[in-house]
Amino acid sequence: MDEKFENSVGIVETRIKRVVDEKETLKLVSGKTLSCVDVAYETYGKLSESGDNVILVCHALSGSAHAAGYNSLNDKKPGWWDNMIGPGKAIDTDKYYIICSNFLGSCCGTTGPCGINPKTGTPYNLDFPLITISDMVKVQKLLLDKLGIKQLLSVVGGSMGGMQVLQWTIEYPEFVKSAVVIASTSRLGPQSIAFDAVGRNAILADIEAGRPPHKGLATARMIGHITYLSQESMREKFGRVLRDSDKYSYDFSSEFSVETYLNHQGQSFIERFDANSYLYITKAMDYFDLERDFGSLQNAFARTKSKFLIVSFSSDWLFTPGQSEEIVNALVALRKPVSYCNIYSPYGHDAFLLEPDTLGRLLNGFLSTSFEKPKLDKIARYEIKGIEKIKRLRVDYELIESLIKPDSRVLDVGCGDGMLLLNLQYDKNIDAEGIEVDQELVIKCANKGLDIIHRDIERGLEHYPDKCFDYAILSQTLQTLKNPHIVFKELLRVADKVIVSFPNFAYWKCRAGLFFDGRAPRTKQLPFRWYDTPNIHFMSLKDFDDFCEEIGAKIEKKIPLIGNRLSPVRFAPNIFAEQAIYLTSRK
Amino acid sequence: MDEKFENSVGIVETRIKRVVDEKETLKLVSGKTLSCVDVAYETYGKLSESGDNVILVCHALSGSAHAAGYNSLNDKKPGWWDNMIGPGKAIDTDKYYIICSNFLGSCCGTTGPCGINPKTGTPYNLDFPLITISDMVKVQKLLLDKLGIKQLLSVVGGSMGGMQVLQWTIEYPEFVKSAVVIASTSRLGPQSIAFDAVGRNAILADIEAGRPPHKGLATARMIGHITYLSQESMREKFGRVLRDSDKYSYDFSSEFSVETYLNHQGQSFIERFDANSYLYITKAMDYFDLERDFGSLQNAFARTKSKFLIVSFSSDWLFTPGQSEEIVNALVALRKPVSYCNIYSPYGHDAFLLEPDTLGRLLNGFLSTSFEKPKLDKIARYEIKGIEKIKRLRVDYELIESLIKPDSRVLDVGCGDGMLLLNLQYDKNIDAEGIEVDQELVIKCANKGLDIIHRDIERGLEHYPDKCFDYAILSQTLQTLKNPHIVFKELLRVADKVIVSFPNFAYWKCRAGLFFDGRAPRTKQLPFRWYDTPNIHFMSLKDFDDFCEEIGAKIEKKIPLIGNRLSPVRFAPNIFAEQAIYLTSRK
Repeated sequence: MDEKFENSVGIVETRIKRVVDEKETLKLVSGKTLSCVDVAYETYGKLSESGDNVILVCHALSGSAHAAGYNSLNDKKPGWWDNMIGPGKAIDTDKYYIICSNFLGSCCGTTGPCGINPKTGTPYNLDFPLITISDMVKVQKLLLDKLGIKQLLSVVGGSMGGMQVLQWTIEYPEFVKSAVVIASTSRLGPQSIAFDAVGRNAILADIEAGRPPHKGLATARMIGHITYLSQESMREKFGRVLRDSDKYSYDFSSEFSVETYLNHQGQSFIERFDANSYLYITKAMDYFDLERDFGSLQNAFARTKSKFLIVSFSSDWLFTPGQSEEIVNALVALRKPVSYCNIYSPYGHDAFLLEPDTLGRLLNGFLSTSFEKPKLDKIARYEIKGIEKIKRLRVDYELIESLIKPDSRVLDVGCGDGMLLLNLQYDKNIDAEGIEVDQELVIKCANKGLDIIHRDIERGLEHYPDKCFDYAILSQTLQTLKNPHIVFKELLRVADKVIVSFPNFAYWKCRAGLFFDGRAPRTKQLPFRWYDTPNIHFMSLKDFDDFCEEIGAKIEKKIPLIGNRLSPVRFAPNIFAEQAIYLTSRK
Repeated sequence: MDEKFENSVGIVETRIKRVVDEKETLKLVSGKTLSCVDVAYETYGKLSESGDNVILVCHALSGSAHAAGYNSLNDKKPGWWDNMIGPGKAIDTDKYYIICSNFLGSCCGTTGPCGINPKTGTPYNLDFPLITISDMVKVQKLLLDKLGIKQLLSVVGGSMGGMQVLQWTIEYPEFVKSAVVIASTSRLGPQSIAFDAVGRNAILADIEAGRPPHKGLATARMIGHITYLSQESMREKFGRVLRDSDKYSYDFSSEFSVETYLNHQGQSFIERFDANSYLYITKAMDYFDLERDFGSLQNAFARTKSKFLIVSFSSDWLFTPGQSEEIVNALVALRKPVSYCNIYSPYGHDAFLLEPDTLGRLLNGFLSTSFEKPKLDKIARYEIKGIEKIKRLRVDYELIESLIKPDSRVLDVGCGDGMLLLNLQYDKNIDAEGIEVDQELVIKCANKGLDIIHRDIERGLEHYPDKCFDYAILSQTLQTLKNPHIVFKELLRVADKVIVSFPNFAYWKCRAGLFFDGRAPRTKQLPFRWYDTPNIHFMSLKDFDDFCEEIGAKIEKKIPLIGNRLSPVRFAPNIFAEQAIYLTSRK
């Protein structure tokens, strides 16, 4: 076997299934109908006996059913997502049964404008009816029905594939156990519509003039490619390098290597893609608008039953992190199970194909914990490592656990690797949600099957409704925030009770240090130097008491602590406590 | 008079001057030559007797010589920069004599591809030689020579106009007293080249097919317009609103209002602009590359004598703030007089035409202080207002002044409204530079004629060479920084001596407050509450002594202070001083 087949699904065949025959009609959103609809699809892995391991992969604009492996021994390149789908890979073919189908309107096997119109016996071309993402998903569902699939473990898709995923969760809520939406949006903004429109204009100008729309399609593809890359990645990839000279040619040839690259992309696209399909697909993207269809994003997601993973990439300016956050905010406001990670990447929108490591670890964790609930290793449960060790002490964890009632809804703000939430899930059967700013810790939480939102808490919690949690936890984090008072007040709004723990700056060693030594104090709880400490606010128990009084918070319980002792400090706690845990609520 | 003529230069005439006659030749950078070169230009205001009030305005891609006023009574719109040029406006026609000329290669009066080739008697079209920014500037200089202009008070230009400004300062260093470069760059990045190339491709495809290049030019203009706006401003302006229906049309017509807008922009551009000019001008932009021409940006600016003002806009993604900063960094490294402001604006690249208030105040201050050195009002000199009052105490100012030797080079980091630097300029004749993060304070400094860089000091000083200042001042700022140790070490690198002042956290009232009261101390110097204080690090004189020892800094002078007394605290300063000023240097 060729070494290209290592970790590959090997040779795969693209199959065609007729999902609407000549006697049936498929009703489209536009009101038009279609007969004789064929769907091209590929499958990888084995269907389990109970049929619980099916993952549907939805492709993007110019993709096809050929997502992994090779269609023939001579193929130079594997399928478009081969770095994610295969034995032992993130979407593991040893474990899951994966289906990828070409969507309606495309030109890679499924019925589209270049297919034969049964009424005329000639290709549809521009007589093909306009289609929508919803139509595409409907056709995918017909395929799954024909294949006898009863439920999807997950629907996964990037870019326009993510739009299909969102539509799936809304139209077939019972059918979709989990959903992964990568670098996508619930609706394009005007800039993306504008780029699409310029590309279509170029194609339509050719068609109107009676020319084959080659130049137009190439122009559209060139514009597309610019939007798939980030400025940073373009600078790195091309810079201002000239193609084959170090001198300017002083003519209008393509002399910068970025020009040559785009020309090549445009030309090779003409050879493999149909200009009419490009018109229909971009229009379907422009039309996709869940806010419009349902009145609001929250309405759109109101009846979904899936567990969501939303992923964006930091440098993606076509489908921006902000657009992913809109989806996350709507789901969060509905208290639907959702995780979100904004992966740091320089590769722009293309990152969804180019970050197999980070994206892979995230996806792998999310899919496998969706498949099987993870087991908690009782021994490992309180092993807290590295920076976590400094941030939280074991005693802090245990006492916080003791304050929380079973079966409650808990938000852990700055939840780290998620150990506290995981323990609470096992011991108290809580409904858990975490917020964490560090990408690697977010991935760790996702691998524990936790709902985790990748966010800087100081950017606000305005999308959470009032009182949507029973408890919010802010463990050893308050003193590291820029605006601790704003965050604390917001937590009092979104949760019935807020549990907060922080080091006591009026602990006697601190007082003595400053009073007698005249230096910024350093203790076990405050081990940093004045200039490199993450603790940028200092408060004592008295300060915090005053603060609660001032903002109208009720202190329900106050547990001053010293060392690893679980029993509270009773005498002069503002002097003898090293840290404290407060249980507070709104008056 | 029509009310549109209020604050307007009124009716102006575009004149034509032949700067290269039929017997002369203009040698171009490409090696080709031109004869019979005409230049279209307009002037506003009056030339002063000494000729010291001339401002040259350079226009952008699709601009013309008609920058202000009206060419006829019936004109609906004034010149392209009428909101900046006029009586009492930022570029004040009551004070200055302003010249704006159409550049070589354009189609608005100056010789270009649509002009007549004297050799053939027919239009040049694509026989016109390729031109560069340097060629354009050469032709502008020929015009000024013909007009008898001996020196420019300033050259001002935005976007591609800014490229011409940069070229002016390099090619005619003695001629240009000051230079204003707005939303521009020393070289386009690959993304901008790519957008230009796609536009040119569309035009050239028409030309190759023997068609009038209307569709191509419209495509190019549509792409251009997308890049001039920000995503944010497009969302605000267009959203996803449909042109004239609330229902999708399910066809390929332009139904989103952003599509209609772009179509309109494309169509109206065809009527007023020449496709060949578009090819030549965008190519001149692509070719502009000061790094390439001179080996490095620092080499490029090595012999400039102008005072610079560089302006960028926060949401400009075509000519990014980062690109402006590259220019600033090169000038800063050469210790050339330069000011920089990154104006907060949602309008993208177009902001250079749409922010007359902010840009106007900045420009007005820079131009008037370039024209006349500002006078210091002796009474007002120590009147410190608002937040400044909290940040700096008078005594702090006076003592810092006393530490600085006359005629030295001084960097004030976090310089506020620039009062300290201004006083030092008058009293000690220093060479001053300020760094400030607040936009409004930056504008205030520019209005005092100070060299001021708009920057967050925590982003680093790596572009300043070692020991390029005699003194760096960090007055009441150290404790507000995220990484005070990194900033302080950098200052020790760039300056011979660093003067730093900060509140003493071990002042007896602080000690007593914490020790006896058990609360985060509040004093006159530390008046904030624990949660909303800008002071995120606390250190005592002893802490700072230890720190200097640790990083190898020498304390040359230490002035512990109490209240408004100018005399230092002699006894137990770490207890009795409220604040301290240190004069430090590298060991």
